[in-house]
Amino acid sequence: MQTPWTQRFAQRTQRMRGSVVREILKLTEQPDIISFGGGLPAPDVFPVDAFEDAACHLLQAHGAKALQYSITEGYRPLREMICRHSARYGIVIEPENVLITSGSQQALDLLGKVFINAGDHVVVERPTYLGAMQAWNAYQAEYINVPMDEDGMCPDGLDAALRMGPKFIYALPNFQNPTGVTLSLERRHELIRLADHYGVPIIEDDPYGQLRYEGQHVMSLVALDAQARAHDGAPYTGNIIYLSTFSKTLAPGLRLAWIVAPAEVIQKLVTAKQGTDLHTSTFAQMLAYDVAHGGFLDQHVKIIRAEYGARRVAMLAAMEKYFPPELTWTKPQGGLFLWVTFPESVNATDLLREAIKEKVAYVPGTAFFADGTGHNTARFNFSYCNEATIEEGIRRLSVALRRFMEMQGTKG
Amino acid sequence: MQTPWTQRFAQRTQRMRGSVVREILKLTEQPDIISFGGGLPAPDVFPVDAFEDAACHLLQAHGAKALQYSITEGYRPLREMICRHSARYGIVIEPENVLITSGSQQALDLLGKVFINAGDHVVVERPTYLGAMQAWNAYQAEYINVPMDEDGMCPDGLDAALRMGPKFIYALPNFQNPTGVTLSLERRHELIRLADHYGVPIIEDDPYGQLRYEGQHVMSLVALDAQARAHDGAPYTGNIIYLSTFSKTLAPGLRLAWIVAPAEVIQKLVTAKQGTDLHTSTFAQMLAYDVAHGGFLDQHVKIIRAEYGARRVAMLAAMEKYFPPELTWTKPQGGLFLWVTFPESVNATDLLREAIKEKVAYVPGTAFFADGTGHNTARFNFSYCNEATIEEGIRRLSVALRRFMEMQGTKG
Repeated sequence: MQTPWTQRFAQRTQRMRGSVVREILKLTEQPDIISFGGGLPAPDVFPVDAFEDAACHLLQAHGAKALQYSITEGYRPLREMICRHSARYGIVIEPENVLITSGSQQALDLLGKVFINAGDHVVVERPTYLGAMQAWNAYQAEYINVPMDEDGMCPDGLDAALRMGPKFIYALPNFQNPTGVTLSLERRHELIRLADHYGVPIIEDDPYGQLRYEGQHVMSLVALDAQARAHDGAPYTGNIIYLSTFSKTLAPGLRLAWIVAPAEVIQKLVTAKQGTDLHTSTFAQMLAYDVAHGGFLDQHVKIIRAEYGARRVAMLAAMEKYFPPELTWTKPQGGLFLWVTFPESVNATDLLREAIKEKVAYVPGTAFFADGTGHNTARFNFSYCNEATIEEGIRRLSVALRRFMEMQGTKG
Repeated sequence: MQTPWTQRFAQRTQRMRGSVVREILKLTEQPDIISFGGGLPAPDVFPVDAFEDAACHLLQAHGAKALQYSITEGYRPLREMICRHSARYGIVIEPENVLITSGSQQALDLLGKVFINAGDHVVVERPTYLGAMQAWNAYQAEYINVPMDEDGMCPDGLDAALRMGPKFIYALPNFQNPTGVTLSLERRHELIRLADHYGVPIIEDDPYGQLRYEGQHVMSLVALDAQARAHDGAPYTGNIIYLSTFSKTLAPGLRLAWIVAPAEVIQKLVTAKQGTDLHTSTFAQMLAYDVAHGGFLDQHVKIIRAEYGARRVAMLAAMEKYFPPELTWTKPQGGLFLWVTFPESVNATDLLREAIKEKVAYVPGTAFFADGTGHNTARFNFSYCNEATIEEGIRRLSVALRRFMEMQGTKG
């Protein structure tokens, strides 16, 4: 008699667990909870009218094409638009350097599929983006953690990490998820130099690059690398695989992102994507192109910057006002998140239970550490709630925190 | 000095090759070629007006929600609609038994991700769907081929195949891609019995079940299995994982399909999908629901059936008229494809080169054989071209075939 396959299946797939972030998001779906937990863009900045106009125009002008199968590489006018846009930031590429993906999460999955065999090492920041680990755990990656400070990934640990022969370095140089920290220009040069020296590619994940609220733009790794190679306008052939997305500038519900890489790498990713989902929704790609081309995106990003910039200021001010002096937090110049460090004695997951009683939530930081540390840290999103709600949420959290610390004091 | 990573990358990914079908599709993109090669639905049956109404309604009524992130499981009203629809075919399921995927190709990829470890065996029909092998090659599956005849997969070989401990059986019971053959009811019962005996799940891929042009509907494996288990209306807990899609009944450019399975299997697939693309386009899901609910899909499928049914008749008639008596072909009762067997001496890939000179194309059958056989077979799509074009295409092919056979005669 065989064991039922469902039972064997359950045992074999035990390793695959759901995301803590998603489970907490479910917990905080009650409408009276103020959640700083998700990474959601504010729905009030979605350009709904522009999408309505575009959808009608698209279906009238190209209806059958928008509903039909299309090529794996992605809608060519959209890839050409990405090339034009990239050129303004010093990234000289052709459509052959671009693959449209079903969100950045798929870009991470496809990179895992072509790069990672079971037991392979990859270098990540400590902490790093949870979704990247979710993608690569499925391919049984092992993580080498490089510590971060207020200038991003510390180059000290990097040399030793690269001697271990990792398949790639994964970096979020701008307003990192989860910490909000930006990698300094000096360290960008050093990272590129080391990667080149060891012949290891860098995956540069840049979902928030457009969302800077103060300070000066720092050139992306791919632009710096291209500049250093000085190819006189030839398409990119360097060490960097660059990812970006329309989720934070246009709308995440379309699931549209892209990968920039040397053409031979794109070809392998295309083959992997064929077997993974054939191609990204034709309709979504043509719709995004219809909305975004002709300068709309630039104008729209200004609206987002103004709104999120104000919310960031509101969150920093509320933390200054309500949090006790034992807490520290980052002051990001852009993006969607900031990072709080509680006193060593405060377990942020335990505190979350008290916080939810006060109807406020965040994501405990430990989920972002490949090595399971970071018990006293937390990620706060400042893009989703408006300014008044942000202040109220931070006030509620300070109440929960005071009670939590008093309870600890009583116990100790 | 290290080897450049791009060089090592090229070596390591050599195993991953593009699909023959897609390469041929590219070759036949010239507008004067009549292509029976693709698996494209006819764009003239796409309900473009219904999509335009739905898109406007959706953005006016639920704009921000349609553009926002959503849950991995899929849009609940769409899953509920799938449950209602399935119930009419004897498949009693709850939304917890349904996962929305980014096309059936993603369903195949996710199943590979949760079931297949390197070297695992899976049972497939011989020939089988090329896209399934593309999905599972990435996970290093090994294939056990079970021969087919005009009644589908032969049960004779199945017993021996199941003794090898495969992870699952993959079957396309209705109008199979590539052969167009339908698995008989008797063999469906036998397949279910054997799978149950050996405790091996069956993946039932059913993209064309709705597209029957003659004969009687045969109950799906999942409905037969549920019936046999007689659970008095309780949600499905059996041996079958059922796949279907909106690509053939609504529009493939949306990339929308679904998996039906026991709830604990769906949960694992949800976790895998989280790491793969987070969720399928919210906008595409809500749009499909808006178009399809309230009976539209049933009405629209009738239009498709009438059109494709007539095209199938046209292709069968043209083959009867133009093809020499040495050729045989299947007479599918539904679906998009039929299957031609040339004389043993005709290599269908070599013949394709001659066919393209005559401006007509098909897919050589060998791509659909996991064991690389089938050199003298070919898949013909009859859904994409209209009736006149089908006749002209088959006529052209008969010219190419005559010349090819004469050349062979001269050589021999």
